[in-house]
Amino acid sequence: MSEQPRKHLLGLEGMNAREIYDMLDVARSFHEILERPVKKVPTLRGRSMVNAFFEPSTRTRVSFELAQKRLSADTINISTSGSSLSKGETLRDTVATLEAMKVDVIVIRHPVAGVPQMLAEGTRAAVVNAGDGCHEHPTQGLLDLYTLRQRLGDLAGRRVTIVGDIEHSRVARSNIWGLRAVGAHVTVCGPRTMMPKRVEDLGVHVEYDLKRAVRDADVINVLRIQLERQGTNLFPGPREYSRLFGISNEVLTHTKPECFVMHPGPMNRGIEIAPEVADGPRQVILQQVTNGVAVRMAVCYLLGGGVSQLDEEVRAPQAAPRTITAIGV
Amino acid sequence: MSEQPRKHLLGLEGMNAREIYDMLDVARSFHEILERPVKKVPTLRGRSMVNAFFEPSTRTRVSFELAQKRLSADTINISTSGSSLSKGETLRDTVATLEAMKVDVIVIRHPVAGVPQMLAEGTRAAVVNAGDGCHEHPTQGLLDLYTLRQRLGDLAGRRVTIVGDIEHSRVARSNIWGLRAVGAHVTVCGPRTMMPKRVEDLGVHVEYDLKRAVRDADVINVLRIQLERQGTNLFPGPREYSRLFGISNEVLTHTKPECFVMHPGPMNRGIEIAPEVADGPRQVILQQVTNGVAVRMAVCYLLGGGVSQLDEEVRAPQAAPRTITAIGV
Amino acid sequence: MSEQPRKHLLGLEGMNAREIYDMLDVARSFHEILERPVKKVPTLRGRSMVNAFFEPSTRTRVSFELAQKRLSADTINISTSGSSLSKGETLRDTVATLEAMKVDVIVIRHPVAGVPQMLAEGTRAAVVNAGDGCHEHPTQGLLDLYTLRQRLGDLAGRRVTIVGDIEHSRVARSNIWGLRAVGAHVTVCGPRTMMPKRVEDLGVHVEYDLKRAVRDADVINVLRIQLERQGTNLFPGPREYSRLFGISNEVLTHTKPECFVMHPGPMNRGIEIAPEVADGPRQVILQQVTNGVAVRMAVCYLLGGGVSQLDEEVRAPQAAPRTITAIGV
Repeated sequence: MSEQPRKHLLGLEGMNAREIYDMLDVARSFHEILERPVKKVPTLRGRSMVNAFFEPSTRTRVSFELAQKRLSADTINISTSGSSLSKGETLRDTVATLEAMKVDVIVIRHPVAGVPQMLAEGTRAAVVNAGDGCHEHPTQGLLDLYTLRQRLGDLAGRRVTIVGDIEHSRVARSNIWGLRAVGAHVTVCGPRTMMPKRVEDLGVHVEYDLKRAVRDADVINVLRIQLERQGTNLFPGPREYSRLFGISNEVLTHTKPECFVMHPGPMNRGIEIAPEVADGPRQVILQQVTNGVAVRMAVCYLLGGGVSQLDEEVRAPQAAPRTITAIGV
Repeated sequence: MSEQPRKHLLGLEGMNAREIYDMLDVARSFHEILERPVKKVPTLRGRSMVNAFFEPSTRTRVSFELAQKRLSADTINISTSGSSLSKGETLRDTVATLEAMKVDVIVIRHPVAGVPQMLAEGTRAAVVNAGDGCHEHPTQGLLDLYTLRQRLGDLAGRRVTIVGDIEHSRVARSNIWGLRAVGAHVTVCGPRTMMPKRVEDLGVHVEYDLKRAVRDADVINVLRIQLERQGTNLFPGPREYSRLFGISNEVLTHTKPECFVMHPGPMNRGIEIAPEVADGPRQVILQQVTNGVAVRMAVCYLLGGGVSQLDEEVRAPQAAPRTITAIGV
Repeated sequence: MSEQPRKHLLGLEGMNAREIYDMLDVARSFHEILERPVKKVPTLRGRSMVNAFFEPSTRTRVSFELAQKRLSADTINISTSGSSLSKGETLRDTVATLEAMKVDVIVIRHPVAGVPQMLAEGTRAAVVNAGDGCHEHPTQGLLDLYTLRQRLGDLAGRRVTIVGDIEHSRVARSNIWGLRAVGAHVTVCGPRTMMPKRVEDLGVHVEYDLKRAVRDADVINVLRIQLERQGTNLFPGPREYSRLFGISNEVLTHTKPECFVMHPGPMNRGIEIAPEVADGPRQVILQQVTNGVAVRMAVCYLLGGGVSQLDEEVRAPQAAPRTITAIGV
């Protein structure tokens, strides 16, 4: 880790390659644990983590919850319905309350961009952004980087093409920040109505023609289309979208043969990704899911262990991976 | 267990007496654990189980969750609301995702018959059917068999009368398959509108007159009436149903004195079962509930332990019961 | 503890000072555990606790759940939606079912006063009232007493002023019973429409003028205003309420300088409490939250440990606090 251990994980914006690779190294050691019959280490026994999801989610919530339980942390879920929020309490007060209950890590997903950042200011608990509006989804970004590195090794100079609704995608944004930090080349592709203004300022190349966008790519990261946004006329319809930007086997004939396909899930089969690709030999979608648990174990470990423990375990001469597997059962 | 350890528990149809009694034997050893102050064994530490309930349930979900926690497994709940399903993901992809997260056992309740079977095909996780439409509810069937055996010993030749909406009852169906496998005689009784066509093909005797149906019974298994189905005109009304098919003390005067009463719960008191019976000396309804936890511990143990562990522990000379209690704390 | 260990915690009415202080002593020993990095003791390993919340709540539910997990108990949540209750099962049958599943402690919140009492009759599980209608909220009462004692030591003769909707507040009622038992003087203050008839019969002093009510107070306990009750015309509006009964810095100038402010949360900032007070140096609101976890650990420990264990551990010469911390990890 860097000199000052990172207290919150709010986004990948501003992280450097060293910080990112350090987290991925820790994730790799946890990945090994997932392959054992007993997928559990006592590392975070007695630590308390709250998953506060103010947007529906299975995938990310279950991924965090499994990660926490496999670290032996105590984990508690809060969702919008049934929470004090319906009683008009401010979210700041909710977080202050959780902190007073001695919760170590608060994982928060919220429909409004910036909420995790706002909540992180002034709390001693570690805040992990599990997706805030159209802003960032840093653990998705990290698991995508983990998956890329698993396949490609060093990411400097690699070519990643992100296809879809770039403007409204927190997945795209976190990927872009992370990929730029590690020196990858990023091309974004999607309908003009879904492209942020001045997207080039993020250091990416913009391409509106899918075939040209994927031609040199080492990987295509396919974003999920939010069908619920259809009414807003960002695109004429799912069929039209699929025809122009859906990733099919035909599209893959225009790529390098080793180019592979990622998708953060949940997939709209037949829209942004053809079933033949979703289930085909070029995708790594389920590997991404597995990697997500490993990455979230790393994040919860690094943020939930407390600084002193980080000093002790992560900075020890044996280094984190070794230490963690040594603790294993 | 049989030569090929059973990977999923989708229904009792097709199971033989040996397989059923083996599972009940394992359940008996877990039953002992439930009587201790510390009702927990470390057997499944580090295994992950997901309870995915796409129909409301307290009883069955809590029973599974307690069973899993008492085996020291990590357990996670998913329900319809708040799941990716609201985002249009296919259930198959949800299960593939859980498998990729290294979940060992997926317990699924779904309103559509056959969904657990469909999901079980092609996943490495073990799938347990916790009730699928009007098809099967195998753990309920097993706990009913456990309760019957507890009272009656060997079930061959015993007489069980099932009363209620036979056509729409997954409880009835799992009971019938299980009871036929162990050689019991089954009589079904209920309104003609609630009797499946060609029900005799299941190997049961049909009787529309309640008093005749219960006359020789060793036990009456009373099904829950789905009041929400009333609008469909399957019966004129709760009062009429109660008069013709409700189990009251008066009905019990027509039975053998040792005949006892079962009900899977939750009960509609005063409709399919009179309060005096529900709370009376002839019922074993709460024993069924206790047995349900033991049976579900056995199911999660047998499916969640992995084949190699089954080999080692269940087939060891000491036999399963002894092994399990020996692990106890 | 008293001769007959208390099996349920339904309310503070009828408890004596000895019983209350004994519970607070146990809570104090658990409080120490909360300050450790590993906030967990194996004390209640293998015990099962159910939190059944039939009213929305985050704060209290999370507080109980954390308390139980930090005692290593297995904990399960039930809420109204998704429970058998939607299937028409009586609450009594639900509790009987949980008892049959060998659940040790049932924590229940219910909108109807008296429900926990009713359910406690005839169950072997310990019932903890987590708030029933306008009746009692005993763990809130205990945590308020804990906080008062933390600040003031012996509470006999101390002056507590409770401000708000006295009539509909279970927090007020539990505080009044507890404070009277330990010999504190209680003043209640609020709009006449929110004052119960014959409130003096509870042994409290009534004051309708806020400034006079707080003049001699050692502490002001500010009740939450239920904005959802506004339609019932109990008060003209939040602004009017705030002007007459809201606790602001200006109001505090009329108190003794050492007088401090409590609030059970969640707060309506700007209505019953001004932001400057909610965040100011005179409040102990977040300390109350921390204390709440310690108190609930004590309650779950004392009720969930079983009588024999209480005999052994609590009555041992080393006394409870010492025993508990000795068990610590």
